Amino acid sequence: MATHKLLLLAGDGIGPEVMAEVKRVAAWLDQAGLASFAIEEDLVGGCAYDAHGAAISEAAMVRAKAADAVLLGAVGGPKWASVPYEGRPEAGLLRLRKDLQLFANLRPAICYPALADASSLKREVVEGLDILIVRELTGGVYFGEPKTITDLGNGQKRAIDTQVYDTYEIERIAAVAFELARTRRNKVTSSEKHNVMKSGVLWKEVVTALHERAYKDVELEHNLADSLAMQLVRWPKQYDVIVTDNLFGDILSDIAAMLTGSLGMLPSASLGAVDPATGKRAALYEPVHGSAPDIAGKGIANPIAMIGSLAMALRYSFNQGDVADRIDQAIAGVLASGKRTGDIAAPGTETVGTQDMGKAIVAEL
Amino acid sequence: MATHKLLLLAGDGIGPEVMAEVKRVAAWLDQAGLASFAIEEDLVGGCAYDAHGAAISEAAMVRAKAADAVLLGAVGGPKWASVPYEGRPEAGLLRLRKDLQLFANLRPAICYPALADASSLKREVVEGLDILIVRELTGGVYFGEPKTITDLGNGQKRAIDTQVYDTYEIERIAAVAFELARTRRNKVTSSEKHNVMKSGVLWKEVVTALHERAYKDVELEHNLADSLAMQLVRWPKQYDVIVTDNLFGDILSDIAAMLTGSLGMLPSASLGAVDPATGKRAALYEPVHGSAPDIAGKGIANPIAMIGSLAMALRYSFNQGDVADRIDQAIAGVLASGKRTGDIAAPGTETVGTQDMGKAIVAEL
Ligand SMILES: CC(C)[C@H](C(=O)O)[C@@H](O)C(=O)O
Ligand SMILES: CC(C)[C@H](C(=O)O)[C@@H](O)C(=O)O
Repeated sequence: MATHKLLLLAGDGIGPEVMAEVKRVAAWLDQAGLASFAIEEDLVGGCAYDAHGAAISEAAMVRAKAADAVLLGAVGGPKWASVPYEGRPEAGLLRLRKDLQLFANLRPAICYPALADASSLKREVVEGLDILIVRELTGGVYFGEPKTITDLGNGQKRAIDTQVYDTYEIERIAAVAFELARTRRNKVTSSEKHNVMKSGVLWKEVVTALHERAYKDVELEHNLADSLAMQLVRWPKQYDVIVTDNLFGDILSDIAAMLTGSLGMLPSASLGAVDPATGKRAALYEPVHGSAPDIAGKGIANPIAMIGSLAMALRYSFNQGDVADRIDQAIAGVLASGKRTGDIAAPGTETVGTQDMGKAIVAEL
Repeated sequence: MATHKLLLLAGDGIGPEVMAEVKRVAAWLDQAGLASFAIEEDLVGGCAYDAHGAAISEAAMVRAKAADAVLLGAVGGPKWASVPYEGRPEAGLLRLRKDLQLFANLRPAICYPALADASSLKREVVEGLDILIVRELTGGVYFGEPKTITDLGNGQKRAIDTQVYDTYEIERIAAVAFELARTRRNKVTSSEKHNVMKSGVLWKEVVTALHERAYKDVELEHNLADSLAMQLVRWPKQYDVIVTDNLFGDILSDIAAMLTGSLGMLPSASLGAVDPATGKRAALYEPVHGSAPDIAGKGIANPIAMIGSLAMALRYSFNQGDVADRIDQAIAGVLASGKRTGDIAAPGTETVGTQDMGKAIVAEL
């Protein structure tokens, strides 16, 4: 059995707590002979800044590039509110995305039936929800230049950010969306603001042309980003795969995740292109939730999204969908048994801490 | 009594239908001696493009500048999907905003008690909701240059949009938010993405400094735009006034409006600066909803947001808050009597068309 080189970057806040449960699950899979991992660990985010003065060290970047997959906990927190811009915790995550060329961010928003009541939306609106946001992750306003603040000298400053998209960047993310739609309900909704942004005009044009050329069997619709945000709140089940740019994807995927009531449950994958020589692709897996500094260190965080990230790695990077299914089933089993962390607690369920949730999932496995 | 010069730009889709009901209400107010209007009408959007080859004519712009207030219906529709970029319906609206310098867009999101069940959110999450989004409307990525698509010559194109914000632009919109918060629940939430955008860094810095300098009595918090979008879905009642940039405001205000279940009910105001010489400010009032081409011409659109826009004009432009209150009460009265347009129909209510809703409001007045 191939040994998978995993780099664990637990990061800040609740990151280390939830990552500890990934280690528990990975150790069990290893022992059970279901998968074989060679695990390394390093720092990212605020803790890396504290240790090295940078949100990710060069050594960690080397390790990330050498790994078969990176698992990341979360970055950031009020402790680093006033570090210089280049050293802010998020810079570590952004550098990983950019340098590993992880252009395809897959964010599933699934409403677990047992948790439908945890949503602020009515049960009938979210029950059975299963949408996938495909977010472009290495372009757009996140990385475009110029990105500056200039002192205009008269008490005025001017800030500039630049959204840049080239045809190939739009094409490759749209292709990912179409391919994934074929394995699901065969529908893609592409979102931009072509009515005010030139990048939206190009986005729509390129997605439409690619659809014509290679994916006519997939249903394609276009939704302006503001309208899509509205529709997500109104009736999210109309969507299957949503493809959009880096900034809109940031917001829309967070909305979609929150709709489900299952935020602490949702993993995500950030993937690079497949290297034709080796057949490998760079990959990073992380929970959709953040570092939750308010509950960090209390042992009450929900580790399920983090453990689900390991399952996603098995599925997308290691071709072990069967083992991934087994983890997902174990998670469902534990939920069905009534065990819940505080974020998803409900009347009649048993509230457990981070470690007990991890242990329960291993027991279920 | 001063005569108010109103320019009505009904626009496309359901615009003309709902604007007709504004005329009905304005005529009644005139007759009753409650207000005096001198009304002009012109075209904007797709209909202007069809007539003049531009989404707003120079003559209409002259009229808009001369008016005390502009009322706009809605622009756009599939009919104009392939007109050249500069002639697209939205260009008319954007030109009005820019040339009249309507930098402050006020978008109240109010959940009418009678309509709480129309929301996709649980009643307890939205009942009594009353938030105000203050959106910057003349800057940011909507207007920043360069804004181009370039042919790179190898089958590749490059699209560029530019987000630009100067200190003064942020300061004046933040001041509007703080002033309005003082008349409400005294809390401002400022939203940007300072963790990835330089304009977000400057935004946060300027808002914080202004708060320190002049509005320490108002509570100020900062929320990243993605996180705010999530929180709006989770527990919107935590907010009072939200101030944000043009693009984030576009999305966040649409989410907030949709939460209420009262989308067809919500007016908005776009205001310029007060001219110190005349005491006047340019102003445009429009519904938050769009042109709804799917139901245009059927006589079933909800005119309440459009009529509410006239009430907002009376309040913000004409200092006739008492008459505005009277319109708002008439709307509430008609809803309480059980009359509903199709979009807000519910079991046990009576569904009426656009005209009957307008007539019922006049009768209630
Ligand atoms: C932490 C931050 C830089 C990041 C982003 O904006 O992309 C986060 O919000 C996310 O969605 O992964
Ligand atoms: C019609 C469009 C240009 C406009 C915008 O994006 O500002 C609309 O969505 C709005 O919010 O008023």
